[in-house]
Amino acid sequence: MKTLTVDLGDRSYPIFVGEGVLERAGETLVRLGCRSAPVVIADRRVARLHGEALLASLRGALGDVSVVRVPPGERHKDHGTLLSIYGALTRHKAHRDTWLVAFGGGVVGDLAGFAAATFLRGVPYVQVPTTLLAQVDSSVGGKVGINLPQGKNLVGAFYQPRAVLADTGVLRTLPRRELKAGLYEVIKSAAIASRPLFLYLEKEIDGILDRRPDALEHIVFETCSIKAGVVAADEREEARRMILNFGHTVGHALEAVTGYGRLRHGEGVAWGMLAALMVGVAYDRTPLRDALRLSGLIRRLGPLPRPRDVSFARLWQAIERDKKFRGTIRVVFLSRIGKAEVAADLDPDSLRSWLREFVVRKRIAVRRTHGRHAGARRGDGV
Amino acid sequence: MKTLTVDLGDRSYPIFVGEGVLERAGETLVRLGCRSAPVVIADRRVARLHGEALLASLRGALGDVSVVRVPPGERHKDHGTLLSIYGALTRHKAHRDTWLVAFGGGVVGDLAGFAAATFLRGVPYVQVPTTLLAQVDSSVGGKVGINLPQGKNLVGAFYQPRAVLADTGVLRTLPRRELKAGLYEVIKSAAIASRPLFLYLEKEIDGILDRRPDALEHIVFETCSIKAGVVAADEREEARRMILNFGHTVGHALEAVTGYGRLRHGEGVAWGMLAALMVGVAYDRTPLRDALRLSGLIRRLGPLPRPRDVSFARLWQAIERDKKFRGTIRVVFLSRIGKAEVAADLDPDSLRSWLREFVVRKRIAVRRTHGRHAGARRGDGV
Repeated sequence: MKTLTVDLGDRSYPIFVGEGVLERAGETLVRLGCRSAPVVIADRRVARLHGEALLASLRGALGDVSVVRVPPGERHKDHGTLLSIYGALTRHKAHRDTWLVAFGGGVVGDLAGFAAATFLRGVPYVQVPTTLLAQVDSSVGGKVGINLPQGKNLVGAFYQPRAVLADTGVLRTLPRRELKAGLYEVIKSAAIASRPLFLYLEKEIDGILDRRPDALEHIVFETCSIKAGVVAADEREEARRMILNFGHTVGHALEAVTGYGRLRHGEGVAWGMLAALMVGVAYDRTPLRDALRLSGLIRRLGPLPRPRDVSFARLWQAIERDKKFRGTIRVVFLSRIGKAEVAADLDPDSLRSWLREFVVRKRIAVRRTHGRHAGARRGDGV
Repeated sequence: MKTLTVDLGDRSYPIFVGEGVLERAGETLVRLGCRSAPVVIADRRVARLHGEALLASLRGALGDVSVVRVPPGERHKDHGTLLSIYGALTRHKAHRDTWLVAFGGGVVGDLAGFAAATFLRGVPYVQVPTTLLAQVDSSVGGKVGINLPQGKNLVGAFYQPRAVLADTGVLRTLPRRELKAGLYEVIKSAAIASRPLFLYLEKEIDGILDRRPDALEHIVFETCSIKAGVVAADEREEARRMILNFGHTVGHALEAVTGYGRLRHGEGVAWGMLAALMVGVAYDRTPLRDALRLSGLIRRLGPLPRPRDVSFARLWQAIERDKKFRGTIRVVFLSRIGKAEVAADLDPDSLRSWLREFVVRKRIAVRRTHGRHAGARRGDGV
């Protein structure tokens, strides 16, 4: 088991990575200051598969732990589920010193974290992420929240957990598609911030897909380190944290127009990175060699799902609606493997043409929405 | 117009108190850094009475201001109204730099403040309180939130505004009952923290009830100063901020069991102070002379509404449910005029008897819930 720290002054917290983290959850919480039985907010499916290990440990150390089960899936990250969590916390007589434990993927982490941020104006919580994506991304950094009918993550808070417990052993039962979706975020982090991790991924990608324990522990630890460093330098995403959004402008928009749940977040980000590479090469921000190297690594995970019925007009609308859009469009470009930069001075019309070109070339959109060239061209760009 | 500052490091903010603050709202927001049209979240009734002055000023300085009207009353401080505010913010294309303006009493301040704390993980906001209670209490300190069906203020955040604009001119249209309800909080603040303000109240109470402008400005400014001092010393209510809860344990419980809206918050607090005085005298924590002096000032506002159908058993249940209740009961006692202390070592059974005695003597409860002595005794205690 490895440990690292997210350095945020008096709100600093540790991240524990490795096999067996779950079995030591109880003693870990006690060491961190938890003094009464916590309430576990668990993804129903995850609770069935791995609940025993976590609950046995928590009950051994802290007594009669309550469990609130929430249904899996992005569409349940809404006010309805949040209200049911508040209701359960009231029923279980949770008070200001009651710790919440978020046990599941990103949806549960965001929901339970936001419940913790707001119930009684804030109670302590820990993240116990069980997907690769949640372990390397959403559980670290304190971004929590829910979706509105009008858009994803429109309501939320910055609220740091007391610890992140990332047990890489649970990744053995993760569906292969989810594993790959998480890997796209690992690849993204390496591309923008760590050439050594990028080289490791190029070398060990097969071992990772085979879920070799040491390889999983290595990539989770290294990716968390990258995110922890960025978050510590810029908790509220004013500037530096924004490079983490490499691939996310198009990625979020694709997720939105295909209806949440059809594309995994990581798959959207993978498409978004490919788009950012093509545009980056076109604008002379990304060297062709680095673009090819990153797109090559993305391709080694196999073909990405193609949401063929996307219209570009709707995709562009979603990009415009994106909350990061403020008058000027900000795009994160890859400067070279291991480094990214934010550009805020792009001409929207030219960006729009490039993105349309990308979407059509990649056969993401099958219908042209302007002009009458229905169907996509066959070329295959970066 | 007078100004004071809530000193919270890089989250410090000014409070403007006096007549004509509303007419200068636009220039004030610009001076504080607001650069685009804000969204005003307004109590429907307040918008009708005083909206013109505020909106003219904001529009003059910042362009096309949008207004979201919310229905008045505590029962609308709920998830339904919150969701409708989020929806309106999305419709008005609010972004991370869009300021919200909370325009109304405590309900609107809490709702709009919580919307500001959570929309896009936090946008700037200012409080423009229009009731005496909101001007001296809820608008200062950053406590925002909503009610759940299970209880009041169970969901919320600590989220400081960029400024508080307390125009004492609007108090001229405040219903007399609301004015008095706010005055109980002013009296509370004086009693726990400022002997000079207490002396002023004893001397000028008639002028205040007649809404003499200089008197209103004086008490709002002084009461805000007290609250600002306590909040700056203890933002998250760990210890010192708790003395502000003098009268609130019983007050909140009374509000809860009578159904929110029947008793004003300030009226509940007035009953709560009287209870805390009686218990304080019984426990030798409050000198009889000071208790009589405070209860005398409270009485000068006239008789308090008596919610006669309260059963003591339900009242006690509500006290136990109160979120401040953690194993041990904490009660705030008046040590002398101008000073209060928190006691956490009381025996619950003995406290319970004293409170029952109080409730029955005061004819708040007409039915005894244990034993068969239906009806209240006629005595009148402190």
